[in-house]
Amino acid sequence: MRVEVVNTGTELLLGKVVNTHAGYFGQEMFKLGLRIQRQTTIPDGGEIRVVLQECFPRTDVILITGGLGPTSDDITREVVAEMLGLELILDESILATINEMFRSRGYTPSKSNDRQAMVPEGAVVLENPNGTAPGLYVPANSEVDSPHLFLLPGPPRELKPMFEALVFPKLAEMVGTDTAPESRNFRIYGVGESTLASKLEPLLQPIADLELGYCARLGEVDLRLIGTSAAIEAASTIVRSEYAEDIVVESEEAMEEVIQRLLAGKGATVSTAESCTGGYIASSITNASGSSQVFHQGFVTYANEAKRDILGVPEETLEDFGAVSNETVIAMAEGCLRVSGADHAIAVSGIAGPTGGSDEKPVGTVHVAIASKGQETFAKRYFNPVDRLSFKMRVTRLSLDLLRRRLLGFPLD
Amino acid sequence: MRVEVVNTGTELLLGKVVNTHAGYFGQEMFKLGLRIQRQTTIPDGGEIRVVLQECFPRTDVILITGGLGPTSDDITREVVAEMLGLELILDESILATINEMFRSRGYTPSKSNDRQAMVPEGAVVLENPNGTAPGLYVPANSEVDSPHLFLLPGPPRELKPMFEALVFPKLAEMVGTDTAPESRNFRIYGVGESTLASKLEPLLQPIADLELGYCARLGEVDLRLIGTSAAIEAASTIVRSEYAEDIVVESEEAMEEVIQRLLAGKGATVSTAESCTGGYIASSITNASGSSQVFHQGFVTYANEAKRDILGVPEETLEDFGAVSNETVIAMAEGCLRVSGADHAIAVSGIAGPTGGSDEKPVGTVHVAIASKGQETFAKRYFNPVDRLSFKMRVTRLSLDLLRRRLLGFPLD
Repeated sequence: MRVEVVNTGTELLLGKVVNTHAGYFGQEMFKLGLRIQRQTTIPDGGEIRVVLQECFPRTDVILITGGLGPTSDDITREVVAEMLGLELILDESILATINEMFRSRGYTPSKSNDRQAMVPEGAVVLENPNGTAPGLYVPANSEVDSPHLFLLPGPPRELKPMFEALVFPKLAEMVGTDTAPESRNFRIYGVGESTLASKLEPLLQPIADLELGYCARLGEVDLRLIGTSAAIEAASTIVRSEYAEDIVVESEEAMEEVIQRLLAGKGATVSTAESCTGGYIASSITNASGSSQVFHQGFVTYANEAKRDILGVPEETLEDFGAVSNETVIAMAEGCLRVSGADHAIAVSGIAGPTGGSDEKPVGTVHVAIASKGQETFAKRYFNPVDRLSFKMRVTRLSLDLLRRRLLGFPLD
Repeated sequence: MRVEVVNTGTELLLGKVVNTHAGYFGQEMFKLGLRIQRQTTIPDGGEIRVVLQECFPRTDVILITGGLGPTSDDITREVVAEMLGLELILDESILATINEMFRSRGYTPSKSNDRQAMVPEGAVVLENPNGTAPGLYVPANSEVDSPHLFLLPGPPRELKPMFEALVFPKLAEMVGTDTAPESRNFRIYGVGESTLASKLEPLLQPIADLELGYCARLGEVDLRLIGTSAAIEAASTIVRSEYAEDIVVESEEAMEEVIQRLLAGKGATVSTAESCTGGYIASSITNASGSSQVFHQGFVTYANEAKRDILGVPEETLEDFGAVSNETVIAMAEGCLRVSGADHAIAVSGIAGPTGGSDEKPVGTVHVAIASKGQETFAKRYFNPVDRLSFKMRVTRLSLDLLRRRLLGFPLD
């Protein structure tokens, strides 16, 4: 089954927005045993007609993103209907949903949104709980030699939930269940992708019918085993024995969900005392639904005075060792434990950059402490010389992984 | 001059690597007054021949990335030579450079690298100080109807320096200097994309040589005006008069940078008291480099006890009105102002979902308060029924925009 992707959006070609759809679809297709044969990006406007005419005869499925919005250069829906000779019919229930969405946010629905409620006859409406324009599935039509068409919204936060809930299952159905290989994901923290590969590949080589996939980000690597059930089991045993304490989870569960599950299992809570991450750790913890059970409060103590007044970090500690030191983060974490009454506390202080570094403490330096009731406080210096936002994300992931190790009774160093 | 981009690389279609070339080229072309008309990604191997055959008749310049490496599926060089009927000639000086590079890194040069030293006759070698394979410029050839071809390496750290030093100047020469259009971006908060379009397009229609682009996200819309300097000025006057108070900035500056600039200009500070956003507002403010000047501390008061103990929200307020109410966010904001000593405070409390909603306060409900020294505290209920993460992002953007309006003396409601 040949699959192509067509992304519409002038902003993608102007370089205003990075095209993440192509990669996302590639990963999803892989799960189905499919490959994307070609990906094309075109501007908004008439070019969609030209590209679809080229794609129709050579492909079985086309995933189209963008061009479903209310403005005059969004014409994917109209072009597809015209090419297939399908009438566009106003779907009153979509229109009602769109209008309701506008009203509930205090806006007056605009007439130009009506177009978003038009559906080519015979098309399946793909609901969009995260935006106004629904997606559309237009089945293959042998009379006009058209392949299966999926018309999907451009914004990733609308596209991805729709794809997962409605498109992936439809494609899985087309592919059939027995051709899709099994797969298992290992989320591993603190081991580089190339280190992982050079250690594991010789060990896994003898296993037949096994394919490996890697995806690295923010200090975490996803190792995906793909193959027969027996191959995956054999490989899993090896991965587990090599990386026992580094495996965050054997699934796609996010770090903050793992943390929440571990804390909830112990009836425990965590609090945060953040300097350089500026609230990102607390925000990550609270990204998991139900986090109020394990997280009651957190502190962003950006200024030295805040570290002193809110967390009780002694003035001498700040003066003698500086805000970016083991001594300060230990005092922050223990103060946070005391003030919050939580069972565990994470404290971080570092230099996110791009300015503020010195020879002794260059940009990227960070100290992290984990304090827990009745246990010795852990603290260590780390170095992440990356851009400011990546620094915040990496330090957050690192801190949560240290808490994970503490909750599992693993050594932190 | 029509420009297309062809990216080769199976890893791009598998989603192992995000394709950043397309965006990079887009930004560079824009500086030259050029647009990328189409971008195509194909796997390694024979597909390059098919795509080039399609592109040749319709375009003037093709930027090709990848396929210049030493492995058997890297065949761009050979395909181009064959299509244009050019002989491949071994360039001894390239070969010497490649071999030297291997030796200096302690590797033995492999015979397979010889292919990287082959140059189609008449092609211009583009030096690659950051890798083995040089790039190639093959001028347009009217006999075989081929456009200008740039064969460039795939890895960004090899591609970008080569593009800047050798490709950009060549393209600039082809284009000539005075054709580049100007552009201006308006970042507008709180007006839907469709409302904006239906109001502005009739007003801007009479202006010749003007193109409009929209990009919407999280309650914000970027409106891009592209055209002659006179057209942009005329259009800007209209946009400013229609949306005076909604224009966050006439540039690409991020909301948090605008906030920081406005606060710093007054020598003022802000603090945060967050419930449902869980630290995301503080984290957004501190994403801007230099934020320590205007942000000293923030509080994540997720539990009612934290709202009471840290911010002094009266127990009766929480009991009588609930945590998600104007009364509570006003008490949170004013408590935050008092505890932090900041000049302004943002407080939010709401229901991020997916659970925790009720008929009276469904998921998506949020109350936001802005308190400022010596001014009446503003509070209002909003509704953002989107997924949990989008909710946090939207409420953050909304809160920062309210602070922007307060700092500029605009009405908040």
